[in-house]
Amino acid sequence: MWFTEDYTPNVKFSIKIREKLVDLKSQYQTIAVYDTHDFGRVLVIDGYLMLTEKDEFIYHEMITHVSMAVNPSIKDVLVVGAGDGGTVRELTRYQTIERIDMVEIDRQVVEVCRKYLPQTAGKLDDPRVRLFFMDGVQFAADKAGEYDLIIVDSTDPLGPGEGLFTRSFYADCHRALKDQGILANQIGGPYYPDDIQAVQNAYRKIKSVFPVARVYQANIPTYASGHWLFGFASKGLDPVQDLKADVWNSLGLHTQYYNTKLHLGGFALPNYVKQLLEAGE
Amino acid sequence: MWFTEDYTPNVKFSIKIREKLVDLKSQYQTIAVYDTHDFGRVLVIDGYLMLTEKDEFIYHEMITHVSMAVNPSIKDVLVVGAGDGGTVRELTRYQTIERIDMVEIDRQVVEVCRKYLPQTAGKLDDPRVRLFFMDGVQFAADKAGEYDLIIVDSTDPLGPGEGLFTRSFYADCHRALKDQGILANQIGGPYYPDDIQAVQNAYRKIKSVFPVARVYQANIPTYASGHWLFGFASKGLDPVQDLKADVWNSLGLHTQYYNTKLHLGGFALPNYVKQLLEAGE
Repeated sequence: MWFTEDYTPNVKFSIKIREKLVDLKSQYQTIAVYDTHDFGRVLVIDGYLMLTEKDEFIYHEMITHVSMAVNPSIKDVLVVGAGDGGTVRELTRYQTIERIDMVEIDRQVVEVCRKYLPQTAGKLDDPRVRLFFMDGVQFAADKAGEYDLIIVDSTDPLGPGEGLFTRSFYADCHRALKDQGILANQIGGPYYPDDIQAVQNAYRKIKSVFPVARVYQANIPTYASGHWLFGFASKGLDPVQDLKADVWNSLGLHTQYYNTKLHLGGFALPNYVKQLLEAGE
Repeated sequence: MWFTEDYTPNVKFSIKIREKLVDLKSQYQTIAVYDTHDFGRVLVIDGYLMLTEKDEFIYHEMITHVSMAVNPSIKDVLVVGAGDGGTVRELTRYQTIERIDMVEIDRQVVEVCRKYLPQTAGKLDDPRVRLFFMDGVQFAADKAGEYDLIIVDSTDPLGPGEGLFTRSFYADCHRALKDQGILANQIGGPYYPDDIQAVQNAYRKIKSVFPVARVYQANIPTYASGHWLFGFASKGLDPVQDLKADVWNSLGLHTQYYNTKLHLGGFALPNYVKQLLEAGE
């Protein structure tokens, strides 16, 4: 029994499944958790691999700690999507964070992950976390100056995540942020055509809203091409110039992927990636 | 018709083939070239994807330009393996290089690539290139102080490439290098168990021979995990401290992946990669 993700009609990645733990259709999407031989449990939404227990640390560390190391004083955080809880888990490691509002459109993702993926969902009960089961677009629409950090940890811009890749949503995020606010989000991969288009669209729109809009990368072996991109946008903070490496390192957080040298390296993009970002503007 | 590479018995990567151009068994290994829908032509040796026309630039730029940017005065180069010619192609772009000795054990790899992969093999006729069809181990055994740079661009340490991952071969390379000499080689990926073992073995042995032994990374979408590691070893030059960014940039070489900021980023490894290197020592 194999799970296969089609990267294109001509390229596929397959993982042998030990056991299907759950496979259901929610109001919004299909949600499945499989136990696998090589990756532990994996979460699959609408046929796309969202995370594996083996390498989810890469995605969740990179979507969280880069922003936290640029502004270690962050107190109020909004997380959009992220129903598996991995991003919240990383955020709860900061004693200085006071509030984490998490908005997930699909309650069933959280229920499934609480039951089958405690590795990621285990910190959703942290007292600082408030869960809102609603559309992130709607949630952000009436917020102003409330958050230091917004993390958009969504599915790709097809299906329920679509609204989270629009200019109007990014403008709502901008307004929902305080003066030193940062927006971090996953924007796709630089290699396969559909991913490239998603990256270009997201980057162009974010850049039209935020004065600082940068892109950084990580190696995520179980995402298409293994090369994944994140957006870092802010009202002024620069992710390289304003990195507080000493402050972050003094926190003594144990991370498996992220470190402050890699932080800088993450913003050093290959030429072909820089070119596709420019071409999309 | 699909080509499938098994990353483990439980993980596979498959590419749809448009046409099989050649599929033969040489004295040393099987050699195949397929035309594909998404990657152009691909070279497969012993069932492993060696290169695709679409992304070979990443591997070949990263195995070449990192060393050249640390010592832009390199004149004499030995290339071991690399029958496809991609590494030589990148080297020939430097007017300052005077001699490129290329030692490939399998003449048929070169013949196949000359015929079917002119994109990589097209510079093997450069007048500075001398081709030796013999075992790289044997070739290096009687050289002393001849080269500024040795690039070992081999298959993995199973099959004919095995001898190129031994301590005695690295010691021969050390002796074959001049005082400012650099050894660059591909050592494997950090993610799947077989690759990890190869990386650890190579790193441990290189470190036991060279005073400077570092590892750097690149995103190669069509290699297992998309995350690939290279060794940089030298008799003294440090790949970060001694980077000649201004000199290299003044050469005006057009690269699709490499740039001098990414050079530095390439040496900023994730924590889990640093740990597996340390654990292998």
